[in-house]
Amino acid sequence: MSIITIIGSGVMGSAMCFPASSNGHTVRLVGTMLDRSIISHLKETGFHLTLKRHLPAGVEFYYFEDLSVALDCVDLIICGVSSFGVEWFGNDILTVLPADIPVLSVTKGMLVNDDGFLSSYPKYYSSLFSGRDFCAVGGPCTSYELADSDNTCIAFCGNNMISLLEIKNMLETPYYHIELTTDIEGLEFAVAIKNAYALAVSLAVGMSLKDGETLHYNSQAALFGQSVREMRKLLMLFKLNEDNLVFGVGDLYVTVFGGRTRKLGTLLGKGYTFKQASSELSDITLESVVITERIGKAVLTCINKEMASKNDFPLLFHIYDIITKDEIVNVPWKKFG
Amino acid sequence: MSIITIIGSGVMGSAMCFPASSNGHTVRLVGTMLDRSIISHLKETGFHLTLKRHLPAGVEFYYFEDLSVALDCVDLIICGVSSFGVEWFGNDILTVLPADIPVLSVTKGMLVNDDGFLSSYPKYYSSLFSGRDFCAVGGPCTSYELADSDNTCIAFCGNNMISLLEIKNMLETPYYHIELTTDIEGLEFAVAIKNAYALAVSLAVGMSLKDGETLHYNSQAALFGQSVREMRKLLMLFKLNEDNLVFGVGDLYVTVFGGRTRKLGTLLGKGYTFKQASSELSDITLESVVITERIGKAVLTCINKEMASKNDFPLLFHIYDIITKDEIVNVPWKKFG
Repeated sequence: MSIITIIGSGVMGSAMCFPASSNGHTVRLVGTMLDRSIISHLKETGFHLTLKRHLPAGVEFYYFEDLSVALDCVDLIICGVSSFGVEWFGNDILTVLPADIPVLSVTKGMLVNDDGFLSSYPKYYSSLFSGRDFCAVGGPCTSYELADSDNTCIAFCGNNMISLLEIKNMLETPYYHIELTTDIEGLEFAVAIKNAYALAVSLAVGMSLKDGETLHYNSQAALFGQSVREMRKLLMLFKLNEDNLVFGVGDLYVTVFGGRTRKLGTLLGKGYTFKQASSELSDITLESVVITERIGKAVLTCINKEMASKNDFPLLFHIYDIITKDEIVNVPWKKFG
Repeated sequence: MSIITIIGSGVMGSAMCFPASSNGHTVRLVGTMLDRSIISHLKETGFHLTLKRHLPAGVEFYYFEDLSVALDCVDLIICGVSSFGVEWFGNDILTVLPADIPVLSVTKGMLVNDDGFLSSYPKYYSSLFSGRDFCAVGGPCTSYELADSDNTCIAFCGNNMISLLEIKNMLETPYYHIELTTDIEGLEFAVAIKNAYALAVSLAVGMSLKDGETLHYNSQAALFGQSVREMRKLLMLFKLNEDNLVFGVGDLYVTVFGGRTRKLGTLLGKGYTFKQASSELSDITLESVVITERIGKAVLTCINKEMASKNDFPLLFHIYDIITKDEIVNVPWKKFG
C-alpha cells in the first residue's frame, strides 16, 4: 500500500480522499492557510464543512504548518488547489516537495504565456521544476458526486506513461474510471475551455426563466451544439488533438448542471450585466470568468496574427464581451454555423 | 407569399405550422388516416390535442381525403410523418404529389438497406422517385418548444442548394435558425444515432434514482462523453463528415431531456428488462429502439466485413444487447476509451 498526500482541502482535493482511500492507501489531507477551519473541523468530527460529507475513516488531517510531516515517505502528491492557488503552489510549495515523487494536479484551467498563447498547469510547473513528473486530471467530475461514488470517467495526463499507470493503479476503483494520455496540452485545454462554454449554455437557462416559463431545451441544445463546434475549432486552432473533445464535451455537460457557473450564466441570461451578476454572487469565485478572459485573449492573439477569424467563434466572443465590456445578453444566433 | 402543405399532423409536423406561418404564408395541415380526431378537434377549436397548443390563427386543417385540395398550387410540401410512416409516405403519398415541388421531411431515422448498411429517408424517397428535391431537417428541436418559439438551431439538407435557400427563406424566423448543407447522409446519420445514445445516457438517470438518491451528473456526463466518442467513430466508420457531429450532439442533449426515450432509459437504468420496461410504456412508440437495432445491425455488418471492431462501440452494444437480448443494465465502464 502507498502513502498519498493531498495538498489543498477544498472540495475537489478533499473528494479525492474517496478513491485514494478505497484501495487501502494511507491518505493525508493537508489544508492550505485558507483551509484552517476545514481542517480543524475535520480533526474534530471527520465532517468536511464545504464538501458537506464525512470523509472516509482513516484519512489523516494536517494543518499547513505540518506539511513536512505529511510528506514523510509519500508515494504520490495530489495538488488540490483551485486555479487561484496555482502560482502559490508553483512558487512556494514545489520547492519543499520531495523531488522524485509524482504530482497529480486536479486544478482546471490554463495560463496565458508572455506570447499571448496558453499553457497547461503541468507545463507551467515543469517550467519551474524540470525533471519531475507533473500529471493532471481532466474530464467530467464534480466533487460532490465523486464523494458519493457516482460512476465517473476521467483521464490522467502526463509525460511518463509508466508513472501514469502506477498512479492509475493507486486510484482506480469500481466507480472511478481512469483513461491515460500523454497529450497534456490537449486534454487540459479541452477541459479548461468548457468552463467558458458552460457559461454560454447557461444563458439559455436564464433566457427561458426570464420569460416566466419552464426550462427550455431547444435553445440550450442550440448553444450546446455551437459550443461543441467552437471547442472543436479551438482545438484545431491551437493544433491540439481533436480526440480530447470527448472529455471537454462531457465536462461541459456536467458543468452546465453544476453550481456556480450555471448561476452566473442564468443571471446573465435573465439580462443582468456582468457587474450586476457579480455583485449578486459576490461570495463565490468564478473560474469560468477567468478562463473566458484567457481564452478570449489567446484567440485575439491568433486573430491579430491572422491565424483565425472572429467569425469562427461568435459564442465565445459574445460571452467575452459580456464579461469584459459589460454587454447585455443578445445571443448572435444568426452568426452560428 | 407561398403555400406550404404539411402532411401528417403529429406533434412535429404540426409544430412546423409555427415557423411556416410566421412569415405570412398560407399553411395547410393535413392529417393522416390516424390523425382524424386531431384534425376534427383542430377544425372545431384550433387546439391540437397532442401538441397541447393552439395552432397559429389562419392555419387551414384538412382530413386525409382532402389531400388533393390541400395540394392545390402548393410551393412546399413538408412530410411530417413519424419514422413508422415513412414507407407509407414513400409508397402511397409520393405518387400523388405534384412532381416539381420540393419535399422537406422532418422524420428522423435511417433505413437498413439490403446490403446491411443504412440510408437516409431522403435517399430512400429519391430511390422511389428520382428527379424530385427531397430535403430533410436535422438538429435539436422538440416540437413543444418550437411551438413556444424557443430559439432553435437546426440544419436543412438536400441536393440542391438553390432549393434549400428558397425553403430557408420561407421558414426562417427570428427564433428558428436554419443552416444549410448538401451532406444529406452525414446530417441524417448524425441526428439519427443520437436516439440510441440518448437511451444510453438515460441509463445513468435510472441508476442514480434506483439508489434512492437525487440525480447524479458525473455518470450522465461519462455516458454523454462516451456517446460523443462513439458517435464520432460511427461517422468515421461510415465515411461521413465529422462536422455533422455538432448536430448529433445538440440533438443528443435535447433528447436526454425529452420525454419517451428518457423514460425508457430510466426504467432500464433502474434494472428493468427491456420487456418489462416496454410493457410499462406500452402506449408510446419508441423510435430510439428501432434506430438502436438498425445501427447495431449496420455496425455488425461492418464487423463481419472486418471494417470495425466491437470494442470500439461498447456503449452501443450494451444498449443493443439490452434491447435485443433482454439483458439487464451493467454499463461496461472499463471498456470505454
